Amino acid sequence: MEGQGAYNRYAKLQAGGATLGLPHLEKAVRRLPLESGDRPIVIADYGSSQGKNSLAPIRIAIVALRARLGPNRPILVYHEDLPFNDFNALFGVLDQDPDRYVLDEPNVFPCAIGRSFYGSLLPPDYVNRGWSSYAVNWASRIPSLIPGHIFALRATGAVRAAFDRQGAEDWETFLSFRANELRPGGRLIVVLAATDDDGISRVEDIMDHANAVLADMVEEHVISADERARMVLGAWPRRRHDLLVPFAHDKQFQDLRVEYCETSALPDTAWADYQQNGSKDALASKHALFFRSTFAPSLALALNRSRDAEEQRAFSDRLEHGLPSRIVGQPAPMNSFLATIVLAKLGIV
Amino acid sequence: MEGQGAYNRYAKLQAGGATLGLPHLEKAVRRLPLESGDRPIVIADYGSSQGKNSLAPIRIAIVALRARLGPNRPILVYHEDLPFNDFNALFGVLDQDPDRYVLDEPNVFPCAIGRSFYGSLLPPDYVNRGWSSYAVNWASRIPSLIPGHIFALRATGAVRAAFDRQGAEDWETFLSFRANELRPGGRLIVVLAATDDDGISRVEDIMDHANAVLADMVEEHVISADERARMVLGAWPRRRHDLLVPFAHDKQFQDLRVEYCETSALPDTAWADYQQNGSKDALASKHALFFRSTFAPSLALALNRSRDAEEQRAFSDRLEHGLPSRIVGQPAPMNSFLATIVLAKLGIV
Repeated sequence: MEGQGAYNRYAKLQAGGATLGLPHLEKAVRRLPLESGDRPIVIADYGSSQGKNSLAPIRIAIVALRARLGPNRPILVYHEDLPFNDFNALFGVLDQDPDRYVLDEPNVFPCAIGRSFYGSLLPPDYVNRGWSSYAVNWASRIPSLIPGHIFALRATGAVRAAFDRQGAEDWETFLSFRANELRPGGRLIVVLAATDDDGISRVEDIMDHANAVLADMVEEHVISADERARMVLGAWPRRRHDLLVPFAHDKQFQDLRVEYCETSALPDTAWADYQQNGSKDALASKHALFFRSTFAPSLALALNRSRDAEEQRAFSDRLEHGLPSRIVGQPAPMNSFLATIVLAKLGIV
Repeated sequence: MEGQGAYNRYAKLQAGGATLGLPHLEKAVRRLPLESGDRPIVIADYGSSQGKNSLAPIRIAIVALRARLGPNRPILVYHEDLPFNDFNALFGVLDQDPDRYVLDEPNVFPCAIGRSFYGSLLPPDYVNRGWSSYAVNWASRIPSLIPGHIFALRATGAVRAAFDRQGAEDWETFLSFRANELRPGGRLIVVLAATDDDGISRVEDIMDHANAVLADMVEEHVISADERARMVLGAWPRRRHDLLVPFAHDKQFQDLRVEYCETSALPDTAWADYQQNGSKDALASKHALFFRSTFAPSLALALNRSRDAEEQRAFSDRLEHGLPSRIVGQPAPMNSFLATIVLAKLGIV
């Protein structure tokens, strides 16, 4: 994710997708078994990035919890992301954003964890309510380069199979660690980019455009062919079927049971604006900013180590500015798919 | 504190000072009342900066806890600092440092809080063991400029009184919030820069040198007179007496009681090296780096807003490089004073 708060400003698609998970979140909180006593209630946010997109889901959970518990029971909120995440932007949002969830909530305590969620993060039987939005799409490692492209869904044959295996393995790893740290009766809601049942995600177009811009950049000697060849995105959408595989046997995976799992197409707010105002340029620039803030930093990792921060920024600028002319030529909605999955941990406390 | 991990590398004085608090820490952990059950044990580190100086104290607490609790009881460790602290350096240390305390400790869970400790950070009755090293010297606000100097102990009259009042108020604020979140029977150990009973801290010399370098920088038009006039350090040492004032009445402050409070002079490791190797240059450069990594970022806050990151770095470079020629002229040990205070929360759980 792009630092300096850029992801907070431009990751609107992800914010919209998360919205579809919110009713499940509220319902899940209503069903949570909550012990009496003063034990703090624990909310975990896996893959928070810079926090802006987490404010609404955490706020909703808090409101639902307060309706059951009253104003005084302490609520701990753990925002997790990788060690190099922009935690200054995150803490700025938690402390200063007009929509911050601590407002009028003196007994809510936010904190952050800077470790990968493909590992243990919190004590066993600890988390009452987990949330993860557009995060589990990011693999723990990139299994292969993709000849001629940057996007796993454009890979074929053995390369595609390597990505499918990595995705399956990562999903089971993620679920295992969450199964351990979720409190019996607790719920975990995961929202992630998906494809339809035929494997179509509808972000293929913008990925093809970006791929073409990168080819231009090689021709113009902005990047070298070697740098281009190393570029590959570690995130890609999954099919509903892929998400359910671990639960096929026994209807449960470790102590987790699926309460809900559906995919849906997400309305593209930039497209809706375009239908109102007719501005192709505005549409193209919004899609380009979404791509840049979400994916450019991952691609920039492939640049030669000798390149400094300014050159990395210049790379992202060139990529962003190369996209609109291609998008304007064939304006299309980006009705990307997403999956929402609600998991419950078996047992009682 | 200087970012990019600089404080981790050069804040050796603070590391040395903290060492004097470690035996108290171990003793405090041995005395902690620890409930049975699976409730996680909570350690809080107030003012962690980039984490390197926290590894030894946290490790010692963990080892002492493990001796009483066995290997499985979860231990949560909260590292707190201001929202703009270098949390990437902190999480890098927690995850990668060869001395990281999670090594061979799968049931220890570190996280971070990005809010000021002059406010509420954690639930009531929550923290078993608090630790704070060279952090409470930093005021919540700077009460006044200091004509002709940057260091509060060089202020006189009404200006000095304003700093004394701010220090007293901040200390009570800090204690109040910790009194609330400490668990009954829990212990808080605070190590901070101090003066002797006559108000002498022995960092006066380096503060005078830095002040003189800043005057040179104004003459050389490296900084403007306005920028210089705004520069003031928000940290200064306290007397033992100042720390004990809140406890003078009733022998306790809220639910806190003083178990131990002493000041001592800290051996200067750079001076010890100098006595071995005779290199004035090495001594001067170590003292300059200590000053830069600890204080230059606070002074740089007074630079005009139009100055970019490179100009801020150039300011710190010039300040650091101006110090050695003054230090070499009158080499002296920096046997700074520090205070160690151990507080216990009354009551039983």
